[in-house]
Amino acid sequence: MSELRKDIISGRWVIIAAERSKRPDDFRPAAEESKKAPERFCPFCEGNEDKTPPEVYAVRKKGTKANQPGWFVRVVPNKFPALTRGPAPEEKIDGHGLFRSLEGIGVHEVIIESPHHNHELSDLPLAQIKKVIKTYRQRLRKIQAELQYKYIHIFKNKGREAGASLSHPHSQLVATPIVPKKLVEELRSCQKFYDQFKECVFCRLIKEEIRRGDRLIYQNDYFCVLTPFAPRFPFEMRVYPFRHAAWFSEIREAEISGLAEVLKQALGRLKDVLADPAYNFYLHQGPNPNAPTEQTLRVRKSFHWHLEIIPVLTRAAGFEWGTGFYINPVSPEVAANYLRSAGR
Amino acid sequence: MSELRKDIISGRWVIIAAERSKRPDDFRPAAEESKKAPERFCPFCEGNEDKTPPEVYAVRKKGTKANQPGWFVRVVPNKFPALTRGPAPEEKIDGHGLFRSLEGIGVHEVIIESPHHNHELSDLPLAQIKKVIKTYRQRLRKIQAELQYKYIHIFKNKGREAGASLSHPHSQLVATPIVPKKLVEELRSCQKFYDQFKECVFCRLIKEEIRRGDRLIYQNDYFCVLTPFAPRFPFEMRVYPFRHAAWFSEIREAEISGLAEVLKQALGRLKDVLADPAYNFYLHQGPNPNAPTEQTLRVRKSFHWHLEIIPVLTRAAGFEWGTGFYINPVSPEVAANYLRSAGR
Repeated sequence: MSELRKDIISGRWVIIAAERSKRPDDFRPAAEESKKAPERFCPFCEGNEDKTPPEVYAVRKKGTKANQPGWFVRVVPNKFPALTRGPAPEEKIDGHGLFRSLEGIGVHEVIIESPHHNHELSDLPLAQIKKVIKTYRQRLRKIQAELQYKYIHIFKNKGREAGASLSHPHSQLVATPIVPKKLVEELRSCQKFYDQFKECVFCRLIKEEIRRGDRLIYQNDYFCVLTPFAPRFPFEMRVYPFRHAAWFSEIREAEISGLAEVLKQALGRLKDVLADPAYNFYLHQGPNPNAPTEQTLRVRKSFHWHLEIIPVLTRAAGFEWGTGFYINPVSPEVAANYLRSAGR
Repeated sequence: MSELRKDIISGRWVIIAAERSKRPDDFRPAAEESKKAPERFCPFCEGNEDKTPPEVYAVRKKGTKANQPGWFVRVVPNKFPALTRGPAPEEKIDGHGLFRSLEGIGVHEVIIESPHHNHELSDLPLAQIKKVIKTYRQRLRKIQAELQYKYIHIFKNKGREAGASLSHPHSQLVATPIVPKKLVEELRSCQKFYDQFKECVFCRLIKEEIRRGDRLIYQNDYFCVLTPFAPRFPFEMRVYPFRHAAWFSEIREAEISGLAEVLKQALGRLKDVLADPAYNFYLHQGPNPNAPTEQTLRVRKSFHWHLEIIPVLTRAAGFEWGTGFYINPVSPEVAANYLRSAGR
């Protein structure tokens, strides 16, 4: 018998499908697809700095110059940006309110995680992963100063099946002039929980998950990695900071080391258990905190930033696209067990 | 400059990305991927009736017997069902309200659209497509009589990229014990519009789209096909009935002919313009109408059933999964123009 489970944060239901139950090896063909011959030319490799738009930030060796070799992490505007910088757009309303639109104002940057083409994020030394995380924080702090950007989304697509068009390890940042739907939903349900219980729902969830342990994969002093109770996808994971904070930009130095370690653990175990699958991860946090509204104060107490990691092993299809419901052939307890045992 | 657009029904925003703009030929590699060698053995082919669970319904030649050759359309339970039949499940609440679940009660059926392996839905004669549509109606009417099934989702996955595991033409039906999230959202925004304007938002939208014409692809006396104002995916389409009705099961005989024709037009044009891409389509309608609640009466006036067709040409990635926002490299006006010109 399958089970329907509800995700308390998103309100999404999933079907943990017993009849379709799968083991990690069943996903190997999907994982194998993600291996491709390297591109002939990579604009993200060290030495090709002039093939990207000029860098907006970089962590560099002392004495090296912008847009020259000698960097550890490099941030450049996306050459084919989904959104472009500009002032706060005005909403255009047409067709008696049926058609609403905005100019595509925003920021779209690429965070190149390493000068080396074949060094995946999970294989980088901790010191290098820390530089990537500090770069996320620097970009967030910088862009949050511009109030027309209401939300900043940091994400990574690894592998062609996960939507990456270049295989050189990189993350992306997109700042949008509205708060996206999924965040509005999460913020709303967290606020509702807070109003009722005077507690952050994530703080309670983390305590409960640690106590139970059957979905826990790994923890250190600052973070834990676990599979969520109602995951959409097989081997989906969450990374939660123990300290309550609504914004990633508030991460502290010691926490950066802790995050580098859990991220390496989480992605490394995923790679080991599932034969190096394509994956996406992304950050969920509060909307731009520099708009000192009533809402910001409420978000500070009720929301808790976190990372979601989703390996690309199955496909959303007519059922998922149509309903927002997901059929997942691997229970999160089984997935956690595999990932927990794959100690690095 | 890109444009952000809001879908009035779902509340979803999309980015129509000018910088990433694409023509139909740019998607050919994706479309080509969907061609695969035929399976060695197909349980859906005529003559292999004993390789599926016993049929629950079929449109047959006179004098032929159940589970024997001689059928036009055949409905069988899914051999690996996501949900299984049973009485209304009770919600289980655990972890002080953090973990909610239900037994996986539901219906999961396969509607085999033709006895012939290689006859795609868009290539079938109208008389055969009508038989498929009548079968949808029969299954809906039948399953709606069982009140534990709150919503019935009919959908089709065509091609491996669209999630089909068998290439023999078929649709699926999944009845769930709860109303799925996306439907709850659509129902809610339609109700809100109705409360404000005393009119169905779809009825108004259809009139406005027909008047404008720049997103209209095709129409007959009963239905129109168009690209929506804020589509998630390139070449996404909607099929709307002109007559207001909340439930597909209320479709009339003349409308069945009209739907067969627009569906053949829509899927045929998609095939021509995009080199036979993988696609999903699914039906959106009101929740089970046989629960005579206040809600049902409200749904009757405010909701309008329709079909959504999404070709699989791009992939959702870290941006889409994380935000619920979509980046679409083809504007719906450009897509409609291609599809309109591809007259069959």
